[in-house]
Amino acid sequence: MRFHTRKWIKPEDLNPNGTLFGGNLLAWIDEECALYSIIQLENSKCVTKYMSEINFQHSARQGDIVEIGIEVLKFGNTSLTLKCEVRNKMTRHTIITIDKVIMVTLDEEGKPTPHGKTKVEFVKDRLQNRA
Amino acid sequence: MRFHTRKWIKPEDLNPNGTLFGGNLLAWIDEECALYSIIQLENSKCVTKYMSEINFQHSARQGDIVEIGIEVLKFGNTSLTLKCEVRNKMTRHTIITIDKVIMVTLDEEGKPTPHGKTKVEFVKDRLQNRA
Amino acid sequence: MRFHTRKWIKPEDLNPNGTLFGGNLLAWIDEECALYSIIQLENSKCVTKYMSEINFQHSARQGDIVEIGIEVLKFGNTSLTLKCEVRNKMTRHTIITIDKVIMVTLDEEGKPTPHGKTKVEFVKDRLQNRA
Amino acid sequence: MRFHTRKWIKPEDLNPNGTLFGGNLLAWIDEECALYSIIQLENSKCVTKYMSEINFQHSARQGDIVEIGIEVLKFGNTSLTLKCEVRNKMTRHTIITIDKVIMVTLDEEGKPTPHGKTKVEFVKDRLQNRA
Amino acid sequence: MRFHTRKWIKPEDLNPNGTLFGGNLLAWIDEECALYSIIQLENSKCVTKYMSEINFQHSARQGDIVEIGIEVLKFGNTSLTLKCEVRNKMTRHTIITIDKVIMVTLDEEGKPTPHGKTKVEFVKDRLQNRA
Amino acid sequence: MRFHTRKWIKPEDLNPNGTLFGGNLLAWIDEECALYSIIQLENSKCVTKYMSEINFQHSARQGDIVEIGIEVLKFGNTSLTLKCEVRNKMTRHTIITIDKVIMVTLDEEGKPTPHGKTKVEFVKDRLQNRA
Repeated sequence: MRFHTRKWIKPEDLNPNGTLFGGNLLAWIDEECALYSIIQLENSKCVTKYMSEINFQHSARQGDIVEIGIEVLKFGNTSLTLKCEVRNKMTRHTIITIDKVIMVTLDEEGKPTPHGKTKVEFVKDRLQNRA
Repeated sequence: MRFHTRKWIKPEDLNPNGTLFGGNLLAWIDEECALYSIIQLENSKCVTKYMSEINFQHSARQGDIVEIGIEVLKFGNTSLTLKCEVRNKMTRHTIITIDKVIMVTLDEEGKPTPHGKTKVEFVKDRLQNRA
Repeated sequence: MRFHTRKWIKPEDLNPNGTLFGGNLLAWIDEECALYSIIQLENSKCVTKYMSEINFQHSARQGDIVEIGIEVLKFGNTSLTLKCEVRNKMTRHTIITIDKVIMVTLDEEGKPTPHGKTKVEFVKDRLQNRA
Repeated sequence: MRFHTRKWIKPEDLNPNGTLFGGNLLAWIDEECALYSIIQLENSKCVTKYMSEINFQHSARQGDIVEIGIEVLKFGNTSLTLKCEVRNKMTRHTIITIDKVIMVTLDEEGKPTPHGKTKVEFVKDRLQNRA
Repeated sequence: MRFHTRKWIKPEDLNPNGTLFGGNLLAWIDEECALYSIIQLENSKCVTKYMSEINFQHSARQGDIVEIGIEVLKFGNTSLTLKCEVRNKMTRHTIITIDKVIMVTLDEEGKPTPHGKTKVEFVKDRLQNRA
Repeated sequence: MRFHTRKWIKPEDLNPNGTLFGGNLLAWIDEECALYSIIQLENSKCVTKYMSEINFQHSARQGDIVEIGIEVLKFGNTSLTLKCEVRNKMTRHTIITIDKVIMVTLDEEGKPTPHGKTKVEFVKDRLQNRA
């Protein structure tokens, strides 16, 4: 699993109990899954179709730094299945894990459309191939 | 199921494709589950512990109005299990359903603590009982 | 008066004194009046034209839950007059009351346009009538 | 009337109809009245107690620049009464006027407390007097 | 230098250390430079092209009021060079100074375009000249 | 240079011209520099002291994905000097470069304090060393 995006927990991210608001955490995950899929599938119209069950394992506090990890499980015809984990950057405690997030590629009319990809690609290699 | 909170989808709630950003939707649901539990359990320290799988059934657009519904499934000792649905107020299309959201009551040190409740109560009745 | 939307007061909703920022409260009310009118008038272009005087009766604190109530006072030709109250969900203290909020329906060019409604309707009944 | 704070209307400030969301406008006004009072009364605990009726005269669009003006009407014992106007910086169209906003100074326990001021002062003069 | 826009530092503006988040401060400055240029150049498409080095001299705290000052250094052919300072309204401490911010006017296709202005104008005078 | 955090440009990140608002970009950079320093220096109280000049080279549009890169230039006694670049993830166009960002470690009273670090460390190695 590769961890990219990091967040610094600020007062605006807290629930009234003073810990990380779970809703913000879910929004961060959703954005990370979307942008990861857009990069991999080279299609800007990727939407979240399904998330498997979510366990909130640890909380996090103001000033903590969390990082969001994504791993590809499967390339479907019109979909991409991801696994996602958020952990505390310093302690490496897992905050949340989602075993399966299914993203779908849509065409102009909002119907699922084949993305033509079958494996993880790196932007660096793509640019070289085009050169 | 009772539907209370409503949201008017504004530009700030959209993803770059121009439809409702799923992350915001999840954050709205998480807040509604939390506040519903706080009211029912009369304990301000309720946190989300678990969400069952999530299907994103319909999208929603700028200007649409959505409403969030909550139903109690079970009162545990330290927990409350809810069912949640978000639907489009005008068409009644279901946008998202989460069959099971488990909320837990915490004590001062963040440990699960019994809430002492066994059934849904209405604030109106509570106020009368106290009078 | 019917109370629908609820808000959980989070750190991002506070003024620097640590109480609910009045500006956020007014924004919540404005959104609720707009979406209520859109549902009633079945016209997505409803704007706030007038608010009568506003008394800030009680403050609210982080972690409090407030609910926003709306009542229809009058159906005009191009307008809808509402009454609005925000109260603390647990104590039932009134936080703010606005006796009169006038919403107006606009046409494509932004001119007031008749909405053709004369009484409160429920979405449930509308859907049945159409079936 | 002196106009200080200016806002550039960004997509995040719009309602779903694509014009300035009235709720944001009210929040901007509330903040301006609060900070103006804090400066004048040299007391950081100033809260909005009352606003007289509000007429939404003109709308504003994305990219427009608005400026917020404040004028002192009266120094009370524990209060300060202001008049407020928001206008479009380029056309000078008035967007909104509020004839009377009453701000109150609070003590540590949240009770109204005398502020000891009787006229508008400028920070420049205060600093000179202290020197 | 003229100081217009003022901000009241709210919990949402803080970094996790409880002082003003520098990122918000930079965003406020960027907005003020943009709107100042739009007013002066009478062209709504002004973008930030360059900022000279930035010294963070003093911090600021929740409840503090800051004001943002702008001064014109030079009118170029397609550009406007500004100087910017943010200071604490009560103490007059300088929080940040940016000696040079270059704004550029763009045409429809995003290319620099002459703005035709050579000196600071006041909206009041413009309106009189047109009358 | 290592690129970690990624952002998906949403409507809320745009200026009124419909391109990425420079202020948001600066706020993202400031957060990334802060959290990078906190991780490296193992001190949660790191503040931005200085940024060298900033060139806005390319703009970015709604739906684009940007990534933020950080490189360490120098470990001082109480400071850490970074270089920062933001680029478009798909095209690899550079959006902005800041050659020098100086972060400082503060003690409880807000005075610069030695951080005791002299080279880049990876959390993985730290955890192993402690085991």
